[in-house]
Amino acid sequence: MKTLLTLLALCLPALAHAGDAVRPKHAIDLSNPYSTDNVPTYAGDHAAVHAYIDAEIEAHVAALQRWMRQRSISALNVGVLDMAEMVRDDFKALGFAEAELVETGGHPGVWGFYDAGAERTLMVYMMYDVQPVNPEDWRSPPFAAEIVEVPEGRAIMARGATNQKGPQRAFLNAVESILAVDGKLPVNLMITAEGEEELGSPHYPEIIDRYEDRLRQADGVIFPMSGQDPAGQTGVVLGVKGIIYWELESKGGAWGGPTEAEIHGSFKAIADSPVLRLTKAISSLVGEDGNTILVDGYYDGVRPPTAEEQSLIAGYLEQQDDAMLRQMLGVERWIDGMEGVDVLHDLIYAPSMNVDGIWAGYTGEGVKTILPHMATAKMDSRLPVGMDPQEALAKIRAHLDTHGFEDVEMNVLAAYPASQTSVSASLVQAAIGVYKRYGQAPTVNPRVAGSAPFYEFTERLGLPMIPFGLGHGRGAHAPNEVYVVESSGNVAGLAEIEKAYVDLLYAFAAD
Amino acid sequence: MKTLLTLLALCLPALAHAGDAVRPKHAIDLSNPYSTDNVPTYAGDHAAVHAYIDAEIEAHVAALQRWMRQRSISALNVGVLDMAEMVRDDFKALGFAEAELVETGGHPGVWGFYDAGAERTLMVYMMYDVQPVNPEDWRSPPFAAEIVEVPEGRAIMARGATNQKGPQRAFLNAVESILAVDGKLPVNLMITAEGEEELGSPHYPEIIDRYEDRLRQADGVIFPMSGQDPAGQTGVVLGVKGIIYWELESKGGAWGGPTEAEIHGSFKAIADSPVLRLTKAISSLVGEDGNTILVDGYYDGVRPPTAEEQSLIAGYLEQQDDAMLRQMLGVERWIDGMEGVDVLHDLIYAPSMNVDGIWAGYTGEGVKTILPHMATAKMDSRLPVGMDPQEALAKIRAHLDTHGFEDVEMNVLAAYPASQTSVSASLVQAAIGVYKRYGQAPTVNPRVAGSAPFYEFTERLGLPMIPFGLGHGRGAHAPNEVYVVESSGNVAGLAEIEKAYVDLLYAFAAD
Repeated sequence: MKTLLTLLALCLPALAHAGDAVRPKHAIDLSNPYSTDNVPTYAGDHAAVHAYIDAEIEAHVAALQRWMRQRSISALNVGVLDMAEMVRDDFKALGFAEAELVETGGHPGVWGFYDAGAERTLMVYMMYDVQPVNPEDWRSPPFAAEIVEVPEGRAIMARGATNQKGPQRAFLNAVESILAVDGKLPVNLMITAEGEEELGSPHYPEIIDRYEDRLRQADGVIFPMSGQDPAGQTGVVLGVKGIIYWELESKGGAWGGPTEAEIHGSFKAIADSPVLRLTKAISSLVGEDGNTILVDGYYDGVRPPTAEEQSLIAGYLEQQDDAMLRQMLGVERWIDGMEGVDVLHDLIYAPSMNVDGIWAGYTGEGVKTILPHMATAKMDSRLPVGMDPQEALAKIRAHLDTHGFEDVEMNVLAAYPASQTSVSASLVQAAIGVYKRYGQAPTVNPRVAGSAPFYEFTERLGLPMIPFGLGHGRGAHAPNEVYVVESSGNVAGLAEIEKAYVDLLYAFAAD
Repeated sequence: MKTLLTLLALCLPALAHAGDAVRPKHAIDLSNPYSTDNVPTYAGDHAAVHAYIDAEIEAHVAALQRWMRQRSISALNVGVLDMAEMVRDDFKALGFAEAELVETGGHPGVWGFYDAGAERTLMVYMMYDVQPVNPEDWRSPPFAAEIVEVPEGRAIMARGATNQKGPQRAFLNAVESILAVDGKLPVNLMITAEGEEELGSPHYPEIIDRYEDRLRQADGVIFPMSGQDPAGQTGVVLGVKGIIYWELESKGGAWGGPTEAEIHGSFKAIADSPVLRLTKAISSLVGEDGNTILVDGYYDGVRPPTAEEQSLIAGYLEQQDDAMLRQMLGVERWIDGMEGVDVLHDLIYAPSMNVDGIWAGYTGEGVKTILPHMATAKMDSRLPVGMDPQEALAKIRAHLDTHGFEDVEMNVLAAYPASQTSVSASLVQAAIGVYKRYGQAPTVNPRVAGSAPFYEFTERLGLPMIPFGLGHGRGAHAPNEVYVVESSGNVAGLAEIEKAYVDLLYAFAAD
């Protein structure tokens, strides 16, 4: 297997598409695969706390249900303030030294500080808002938080069950259990909870602003989450790509085309088409393959793989099968027919250029002949480590201008850089050690292709950051969202989830 | 003025866009402008029939209202058969030798033959269906056919008022008046009425099939219509462009991209995009200007202007102002900044390539990051005389294939050629002579850029064909559709409209 992958790595340059620009491909040394075998399994003994959790499990499930029954739909401003106050009051009930709402330009945040007088401080990112629901699509009412049977065991069904109230309140149950048995926590806690995650976190930076000096004193950040797939497998994700997201809009104007409304399609013989103009503008951004980005200097900033990353890629490759990913996504062939390490390379290091949506003119059934006066596309580009989002946007704008598309408007909706945590960070080592204690051989993914604004933690506050948690849930942003609380096999139930959080706090403190 | 236009005509080649292909531009000789001055004003005396019309005008208005009150919404199959039977029964009541419904693959047609034993036969194209309505958008109920005040006088407001029940029943009122006074018509009539014009006339050819041998014996075709603009100006239109209309669809498949559903946008790093593929395919069809068609040999078949057409263009130019058209359409600049004769040239002779609509992925507010699995566009191309629609479609398909877009599907929704009638046809000369009698100096437009399947008459049956009628209406396909029946000034009222039809029948018979 390894030999084959090494060969593939050597073949990489040949796989890149020819053209004006070449997609960046870096040789990946696969000879030194990272393995969690060398990370010591966490061995601390917290039997009394664990026993407390087992004894209190019914109350702990009820605490999750209490959070899930409190609506907090940020998009509709339903129950948001009530939920924020519930979170704050829960912090107070746990004995936090500070527990307060944080005013922002949008829904309030919640700040909590638990002062254990400990040497180390763990920052916890939380979100207390949820997505909207269509209740008629649910088999149990979305805010009833009833216990239902699922293939993996018994679960709570509710909006927010796994995204993210279940894992977060499970974390607080763990905190409560330590306090009940040991009297104090092994680490200090700084918790920032926002009520606008589902809106794209537009005001979360304001919460960081408020406590920035304090937060810089933390030693790491976790985001409590359901980290197990249905087979029980966990993974540690060390990074995310950045993203820029913008709309391109072409309208008739001084350059030509109808300016006020669509006109009869027959006038295309004498009038320019904003739709064709947008099509040309988008088309100019990529080569004939639809993948190679032709924007001048776009690939310049991409930071090549570090030795640690190459080792992580080599290790991750041994546990991954890109053919299974293709099958899961319904893709018959990756770009250029690539496989194996090349796929992983591009997920991590390739800046992408994507059209998320496009619309103009008549989109109904049959024949309607119009020359539309405007056309719009939504586009995004994922940025690997090293690329600056504002620079990337400026290069795209410059490309459009130099290609004669000065009149095509560019409206930026999101822009933030990638985020990266080192596997050597003590928080990460602690997390792996705890996972191993629960029978896991967690995959370690150097960076996923998706984006999240984790740069706030890693780049701005300079802290290592990982999502963490045993447990399984699904249905985020969909009907019938569930969070498993009692396992019939592969995945952890709530008691085990909470025990792992207990262990993580102690492991992080001891490191 | 004329000198300037001649100069412009000489400059034409310089206006064409440079590139792999050049849009066809033909020199137009403007030295011999066509004028209706040389067409004798119709002088026949039908005072008794005209007087009958004046006397019966209230009953005639009522006949129009009777048609308009009968719903006949083809798209919803509301009232269609009842309307067909009303048309047939009206033919019978007028003493037609033949009056029958014609079965088709869709809504029935109506056939009427009035045998006057005359030398000449006029074919009349009618449509008895109407567009759907949103009654709440109307200031008078769309099937009440109430008399309302409009700036031009008093009008009937109804769905179908001007498109086309008003003009068509006005024509039959004229027929009735001649019969009442003179006992028989000066020409034989062959009327084909279809109930699917608003659906794109999918089964009209079947009606022609049924009576083709008979129809070939006719001497010309009219389509009764409201031919006056609000200022009272009429025009004779001698031709229409053909059209091909198709959908292009790109879907994930063996070539790449997601095949079953959208996937997370971050996977663009490793998966191809059907949206970018469609964008590239569309973009490949035209040059950087968005106007020059790059499809191999696409311009080959365009028939250059005949001497008659050049004369007509020269004459039409003296009456037209393309700047006013720009203002009306809200266009600040025509393609390449062209003006005058060049605009008219392109309306008549330039094949166009247009995107009527395009859609893919997320088109709502804000940020949603997906890689859509399919993208669709609706496109059309207007074909001047000389271009074969099936050949044009085949060339586009071949272009896509040779440019590597074999997987982009092309679904043809419409395809028919241009239609052209000579100004020298006796029907056209009769029509101009009648218009002149009513104080008109009608413009004569050699060909409009729009399309209608008039090739059925001109190419298939070999008959000259023109829309004809005094009168004014507006609101076709829109709320508050009206047809003026009593004029307060510039436009003809119903009596005058009917008198002009009377005169046209006699003028055509006498020619």
